[in-house]
Order: sequence, then C-alpha cells, then structure tokens
Amino acid sequence: MTQINHSELHSFIANVFLKKGMSKEHAQISADVLTFADLRGIDSHGVARLSGYLRLIEAGRINVNPQFKFEHRKKTQIRMDADGSIGLVSAHLAMQECVKTTHDYGTAFAGIYNSNHFGVAAHHAIQGFQHNYIGFAMTNASPLVVPANGIERMLGTNPICVAIPGKNGRSFILDMATSTAANGKLEIAQRNGKNIPEGWAIDSLGEPSTDSNILSKKGALLPLGSDQEHGFHKGYGLSAWVDIFSAVLTGASWGPWAPPFVSFLQPKLDAPGKGLGHFVGCWDLDGFNDLEESQNQLEDWIQRFKGSLASKNKEVLVPGEPESRMMDERLKTGIPINPEVWKDLLNISEALNVKL
Amino acid sequence: MTQINHSELHSFIANVFLKKGMSKEHAQISADVLTFADLRGIDSHGVARLSGYLRLIEAGRINVNPQFKFEHRKKTQIRMDADGSIGLVSAHLAMQECVKTTHDYGTAFAGIYNSNHFGVAAHHAIQGFQHNYIGFAMTNASPLVVPANGIERMLGTNPICVAIPGKNGRSFILDMATSTAANGKLEIAQRNGKNIPEGWAIDSLGEPSTDSNILSKKGALLPLGSDQEHGFHKGYGLSAWVDIFSAVLTGASWGPWAPPFVSFLQPKLDAPGKGLGHFVGCWDLDGFNDLEESQNQLEDWIQRFKGSLASKNKEVLVPGEPESRMMDERLKTGIPINPEVWKDLLNISEALNVKL
Repeated sequence: MTQINHSELHSFIANVFLKKGMSKEHAQISADVLTFADLRGIDSHGVARLSGYLRLIEAGRINVNPQFKFEHRKKTQIRMDADGSIGLVSAHLAMQECVKTTHDYGTAFAGIYNSNHFGVAAHHAIQGFQHNYIGFAMTNASPLVVPANGIERMLGTNPICVAIPGKNGRSFILDMATSTAANGKLEIAQRNGKNIPEGWAIDSLGEPSTDSNILSKKGALLPLGSDQEHGFHKGYGLSAWVDIFSAVLTGASWGPWAPPFVSFLQPKLDAPGKGLGHFVGCWDLDGFNDLEESQNQLEDWIQRFKGSLASKNKEVLVPGEPESRMMDERLKTGIPINPEVWKDLLNISEALNVKL
Repeated sequence: MTQINHSELHSFIANVFLKKGMSKEHAQISADVLTFADLRGIDSHGVARLSGYLRLIEAGRINVNPQFKFEHRKKTQIRMDADGSIGLVSAHLAMQECVKTTHDYGTAFAGIYNSNHFGVAAHHAIQGFQHNYIGFAMTNASPLVVPANGIERMLGTNPICVAIPGKNGRSFILDMATSTAANGKLEIAQRNGKNIPEGWAIDSLGEPSTDSNILSKKGALLPLGSDQEHGFHKGYGLSAWVDIFSAVLTGASWGPWAPPFVSFLQPKLDAPGKGLGHFVGCWDLDGFNDLEESQNQLEDWIQRFKGSLASKNKEVLVPGEPESRMMDERLKTGIPINPEVWKDLLNISEALNVKL
C-alpha cells in the first residue's frame, strides 16, 4: 500500500480534472468530494473512481463545461438541469442552492437530472452544517439490484444519506446503500478468492448464490433484508423511493435505464429521461426546536446509545462514527492507496503530465 | 372470524371515543385512521388496538381534550405540542397544517411531541393526495429493538412512510417498520405455537433466538438486516434517524424512554422529553417537474416494475400494492375480526353501551 497525504491527493485530483478541461471551481469541488470519501474510508467512492470518471469524459458522457439551469418551481423546490455534468459538482451546487434557500424558508430541496455519478452522498449532505442545517441526499445508480421477488436488475444500490450536525463536531451521518451489500464488497471477496455470504446476491435464475463473480454471470444484488422472511420488500421499497425521487420525478433515466458508470457499456437509447438523477435538500435544525436544546438532546442521545449494553467484544456506534474515526486517523497518517489503484494513478499522471 | 362492514366498524369506533369524552371531530379522525388500517390489512394497527387506547385514556395517559399548540418556527417548519393527545389525531392535524403550508411554499414539515401512538403511518402521509402532495410520516415507539451490536432495547420498530400520489388512483405507498420483523409477526407465531426464523430476535444475552415468546423473556427485536453480514447497521441507522427526527429534535421522549403502548407499564420518570414524537410533512409533486409528466413517468415506472421478470411463482409488486388490493376486497366483503379482538369489542360495547 502506498500512503499519500490528503492534500497532495487533493491537488493531484484537481489538477487532473483541470487538464481535462474543467473550470478551477469544478475541479476543486470534484477533488473535495473524492478526497473526502478516501479520508472517511469509503475507498470505493474516492480516487479509485478517478480513471472511471476520466473515461466517461473521454467518451463524451461527462460534460466538463456544463451550463447548469436552475428552475425554482416552488419557493422551496428547485429543479436543476445538470447539462451532463459530473455529479460531484452538480449535486454540490444544487445543495448550495438549497442552503441559500433554507436561509429564507427553513427547508429546501432540489431534484437534479441529466447528471452523472455524484460520489459519496455524505459530502453533499453536510454542506449546510456551518448553518446547522440537516442535510439529505440520494441518487439513483446503474441497475444491479432486483426488486423483492424479482430476478431482473431494476435498481441501483441507491443510497440514502441523512446528516445531522451535533455539538463539538460530533454528528449523526447515516449514508447507506439500500442493497444488502454494496458492489465493492463483492470486489473485495473476488480479490481474495473468497465466496460471499448467502443473502447478498442471486444468480440469473433467482437462486441464492455465494459466487463473488456472480455479477459477471448475469446475477444480481439483493435489496436490504435479503429475502422475504427478513424483509427484503423493505430494502426494495427504500431503493424504489430513491429511484423515484432522484430520477422518475426529476426527468432523469430511472430503474433499468439508469446509465452505467463504466464507459464500455452504453446508456440505452430508449431511456425515459436524461442521465442520472439526484435529490438533495436541507432542514434547519433550529426549525425543529430551540437549536441549543436540540443539540444538547442529540449529544445526550449519542452518549446514551454509545453507552448502551453491547454483545460480547462489540461496541455500539453512532451512524457515521466509524467513518469519522477513520478520517481523524487518515488526516494524520495519510490515505493508503491499493496497488492497482496506485498503478492507475501513475498512468494518469504520466498520460496527462500531472505531478503525483 | 366475524366479518364487519367498514362503515359499521367506523361508527362503532367513533361512538366509543365520543363516549370517552373526545370531540366529534377527534372521534371521527381516530375512527378514520383505525378503519383505514383494517381496510388495508394492517390488522395490528386497526381496531385491535382500540382497547389499548381506551386503557391509556383510563390511565390518564391519553388526554381526550387536548389543546394543541402550533409553533411556526420557520416558514416551512412547524412544531406541535400535542398536549397528550392520541397520536391518531395529533399527527393528522399536524399533517393538515403541513398541507396548508405547502400551498404557499411547496414543502412543509411538522415535528410533534407530547403525543401518543399515531396508528398507521400511511393514513397521515396520504392527507395531501388530493393536492398531489407527496406525504412523509415517521414516529418513534416503545423500545423493543437493539442497535447494531447492542443487546439493550433502545429503539422502537420506528416506521418510515413515503406516499406518492399517481394517476388513476395508483400510488406508491412505502410504509415500513425499520426492524426486520414487526412485533405482530411474533404474536402470530405465538398463537400458532411456532418458532420464528433466525434473524428476527435475540435473547437477553444477544444470542440468536427462534423462540416466538422471546420478548417476554427480556429478548429484543433486530433491526432490518438482522446481522452484521447482512447490513443490520443500516436498519439501525434508519431507526435511529426516525427516533431523532420524531423525538430527539421535537422534545419528545426518545430511545429507551419512549413511553410504552401498554397501560400496565409506566413511562419512566427520568424521561428526557414529553410523550411520543412524530415527524410528518409534504413535498408538492408539481415542485419536482411538470405534474402531468411526473405522473406519467410514475405510471410507466409502476408498469415497468410490475412487468419485470419474477422468481418462479412470484410477482413483483409496487410498495403499497398488497394493501391497496386488500382494501378493494375489504370494501366489498367487509373486515374480518379475529375472535379475541371480537370478544374485546363486545366487552367495550357492553361496558360503554355503544351499539356494535
């Protein structure tokens, strides 16, 4: 593993996007989102994706000079045409617009269409933290997941993120895929030559599979809950909610038409909308109750939960806590980059003549 | 099973609440919510709960003449002191306030504290359907569920409901407990003398249990996902989100202090807030995109999903579809009432001299 300092990594990513024609502002935002993912240990959504984004730029599927159009359809509801932008930037700027609107109304939400992969949801959701705004972010994604009872890939791992700012930098950040396991977990099992647990995936006939390569054999991921007995209609329902808010209602391509992240698969020509879709927004914490009282209660909640009885050798954590611990560590020690990704980065560095 | 016509059941429930001192308006609303649950086949949240509500009224824990206080803290954020009301009424009226506010701003949300059990979430969420408003509803509940890695009952089955109005009466209604299985499913297994599947519950030491009576032996329910390998930190995170929005931020009693539904268990004296808490709200469908376009897309989405490939002898359904089918049926054939519940209702009828 190569270790790299987060600010060096940030500069590299920003310079790469600059070289590909992005504005300075957009390159900075893109680097912010990817570096944040790596700092928080969400390695699948950090710099490991850089070469994927570059291939989409080269394939003409990501527009590095988008003209965003904001439509304020209602006082607190915004629609954004992302003009083929990288989602890292469009979702960020849509959230900034929500933050501004929340100053006046207490809440604001934006639906974004004609976009691309937006990276790690939590980075968008925390944009209102300095104003004590709760953040919300969802996105649809390439179809890999079956509905409950289904065997066809109809949904992405469609994440939901809710981020609630607390006292003393301690916050509640739930950022979860709505499938039982994310694709990245299957890739780790593949690399290690291991099987996956039952309940993560099915084969093309709908039978349970423990083959970590099942996605390359027309298998599919299962929604959170894994099977009927364990409530997979709930994971399906959550994923469907994300698809509808992010894409069906915004004008993006939904369900099985959501454009694939990989550049070698073409988006389908009969798609019902444009690009990927996202949904982001805020609630003002002060709109619930007196701000200080709310933050004191949230702090008490965090302490009570962390202090609750745990299974042997286990610890009860607050959503977002493992990532926040990882961030503290990686800010000090640097970010470990796995050898394959590092090779990728060296190739990019050489091809674009950007110092790594 | 006794079958009862839904409007007869509705009259009975309303008359019972009237006899207990509720206003005509509140008795009607309460009867609406409970009858709706029975019509949709959510029998655990319908008239089966009537005797429970009555016992809470008799114990002085439900106030039948509440003075609601609405505080419009921001233009789109409302706080409601429910003054000990039955939640069936407080959540309904808070949602009505959100619907009115949404006319002006496109969205509105209300946090409710000092309340009681609010019945089936979907009834609150659909209150804006005639205006084409998407509805949202959550509530915290008596602690029965452990956090991921925990063995202490810290959370309720804390439901999340999202209801999206479609064309031709076809809608998307997700209304789900955030635990793997709801308490009602354990009760059914108990009645049938059956074990429960692994992954629903643990015993007091945190070991997996298949005993359907485990809750009476200090066991607890597991969050959606069931175990670490299958993502129970996600179910925990969702349940925690509900607890925070409904109670921590509104001023209600949260987590292990959420007041029990049963009247023989007393709320804890050191509770950090007042009563149960709910969170409800709306988004205007027309605020996402042109209304007709959105509803056409939603209809296409529903048809595409229903037509997708299913496992052998299975069917892919849209969230809310089983309940909507049940409602069509029960509107015609009446509502079946199980013998124990029927006995309960006859007792109530006799004691209060209300015709059944």
